[in-house]
Amino acid sequence: MPREAVLHFAASETDSNLLYASGFAAGDPFPFFVIDGRRFLVASDLEIDRAKRTARADEVLSFSELQKRLKERGRESVDFIEATAEALRERGVDAVTTPADFPVEAADRLRGAGFRVGWRKNPFYPERVVKRPDEVEHCRASLQAAERATGRGIAMIRASEARGGDLWLDGAPLTSERVKAAINGSLLEDGCFCGTVIVAGGEQACDPHETGHGPLPAGRPIILDVFPRSLTSRYWGDMTRTVVKGRAAPEARKLFDVVMEALERALAAVRPGVKGEELQRATVEFFEKEGFPTRSREGRMEGFFHGLGHGVGLDIHEAPSLKIDKEGLKPGMVLAVEPALYYPGIGGVREEDLVVVREGGIENLSKLPHVFEM
Amino acid sequence: MPREAVLHFAASETDSNLLYASGFAAGDPFPFFVIDGRRFLVASDLEIDRAKRTARADEVLSFSELQKRLKERGRESVDFIEATAEALRERGVDAVTTPADFPVEAADRLRGAGFRVGWRKNPFYPERVVKRPDEVEHCRASLQAAERATGRGIAMIRASEARGGDLWLDGAPLTSERVKAAINGSLLEDGCFCGTVIVAGGEQACDPHETGHGPLPAGRPIILDVFPRSLTSRYWGDMTRTVVKGRAAPEARKLFDVVMEALERALAAVRPGVKGEELQRATVEFFEKEGFPTRSREGRMEGFFHGLGHGVGLDIHEAPSLKIDKEGLKPGMVLAVEPALYYPGIGGVREEDLVVVREGGIENLSKLPHVFEM
Repeated sequence: MPREAVLHFAASETDSNLLYASGFAAGDPFPFFVIDGRRFLVASDLEIDRAKRTARADEVLSFSELQKRLKERGRESVDFIEATAEALRERGVDAVTTPADFPVEAADRLRGAGFRVGWRKNPFYPERVVKRPDEVEHCRASLQAAERATGRGIAMIRASEARGGDLWLDGAPLTSERVKAAINGSLLEDGCFCGTVIVAGGEQACDPHETGHGPLPAGRPIILDVFPRSLTSRYWGDMTRTVVKGRAAPEARKLFDVVMEALERALAAVRPGVKGEELQRATVEFFEKEGFPTRSREGRMEGFFHGLGHGVGLDIHEAPSLKIDKEGLKPGMVLAVEPALYYPGIGGVREEDLVVVREGGIENLSKLPHVFEM
Repeated sequence: MPREAVLHFAASETDSNLLYASGFAAGDPFPFFVIDGRRFLVASDLEIDRAKRTARADEVLSFSELQKRLKERGRESVDFIEATAEALRERGVDAVTTPADFPVEAADRLRGAGFRVGWRKNPFYPERVVKRPDEVEHCRASLQAAERATGRGIAMIRASEARGGDLWLDGAPLTSERVKAAINGSLLEDGCFCGTVIVAGGEQACDPHETGHGPLPAGRPIILDVFPRSLTSRYWGDMTRTVVKGRAAPEARKLFDVVMEALERALAAVRPGVKGEELQRATVEFFEKEGFPTRSREGRMEGFFHGLGHGVGLDIHEAPSLKIDKEGLKPGMVLAVEPALYYPGIGGVREEDLVVVREGGIENLSKLPHVFEM
């Protein structure tokens, strides 16, 4: 009788499906498979004791013992893929289902060895999309760390002064780099880390993924986007605030007002059953109606040219993507909602809250006020 | 005439082959392909301006324009894989070579669309194995950050005092967590980060990948393993020191002496042409001769049961693995060399230096002294 298994082969520090399934964080790839609900982890000698102690596995198999057994039968060199094929065969498995990003080498070699290999797209574990209460609390904790850190960065900008168009603090230019270091210092105190803190002002803020460098400008919007991962729970938080030191130009102030209204409209519309793509479309249309079209101009994007939001959990970007969601939101989803406008010459404004979808609407996890000029 | 391309589809923040090829760090997957030396990057609207400005690509293709073109021809929803297939077809490509960890979904769908898809194992870019001088300097800088941070952690242990078997500092138990936070604080000051700092003492140190928790023990070996990645260059450093606050038991002192001799022997033997597996075998044999066998005992590993070392670069573990290398070392390789001994009941000792293979032998990048008792 053919027997099926779910199979992973990845480094769980960067593969959240495997982390979710195994509860075991490792920097190097390891195989993990599930047969009729029974979970098997194949571990190197280096990892086997830690895996036995901490992984959510019913059995931890020794890679070196599998290797030894196969070498005794004349195989020359045995790697994880070959050992996994053997472990599956020993248990009567002849077909596996993998995540869509399962490595092609492993898939092809398993097929060559007679296995059927099928893959499934994300959400590979559909239950990941709806967070358990403990998962919500992990996201909330990472968000709180992000808010405390962002507050520290904003306090630096508030305390700075303008000199010739740039901000200065404590006798030196206040740079993106200084604010980013203060933010990550604060995150670390809370057991979190953010690999790419964004503190980008003026024209730099018109590119959503420019992380920012050099002196911050006075009187122009500065985007602070902070998305830390907890070093222990490994759940993420996500938030963005945009601030101006001094008075903003009326055009920039208008961007902020319109983005804030878009955020409030989106948050008011989030509830179970609403489709993400409808929220996305409504936001783009609202911006257009307000005179802020999205388009490519002189070879550069302007307006609102990214997704309105995304799920947050063990991945910083996970299902649902509000840009394309057609299935409708569900209670327990944790969503980052981030309307924004970017116009070269004026600046960029992005405001992002993290919310939980609840029966009647949302619970907003974000507490840091949205304050523009200071 | 059939035309071939090299094809990547990954998030370059965690896929170093793509980061190496494109010079573009992104947290979300993007396609990148090379035809006859000409490099193409497919970017979302969100990333396109940053990609045009900073990626090592001859052409940056707009994903949304490819989408639009395909939708005009009646396709319903177009994702990165479909857009990439179209971009390849437009350029006459019908066969691609990918890294071994290329996602199976993309491989299967490209095959379904008529492409030949072959993969190659790591080192996918053989030139990555031998570092350019600028790459060596990046590793050196990350190592220097690691040494400064480890020095700070060791200073805390040195300044602590023993109370009832545990270390205390400034009126509180000196925990693994406190030392790890101080280490990452120092790394951050140097623009680096280490997701899993190891500060593990006593029995915890007998498991090489236990990161350590709770009060550190007096009079027993404490392993500090620090491997930071630069947030800017994205190259790694790697180093380990083992220290004891107070006097170690003679058995533990013996572990240190033997591990240090193993390190010195290994470093003296590293030179171009020597095979990693020979160094590995010599180390295991040396340990055995000194009375420290490697084996499983009462269901736990003891002795020296991990690799003697590994290449370091854009990945923390990259080719060559000294455990299995049969090709021989080459000038310009950056290697972490880390002999160790672990015996439950006695403790764990690991000493790790980072070196560059040079014509006559090595250049040792590590400067932090190996000091055991303090």
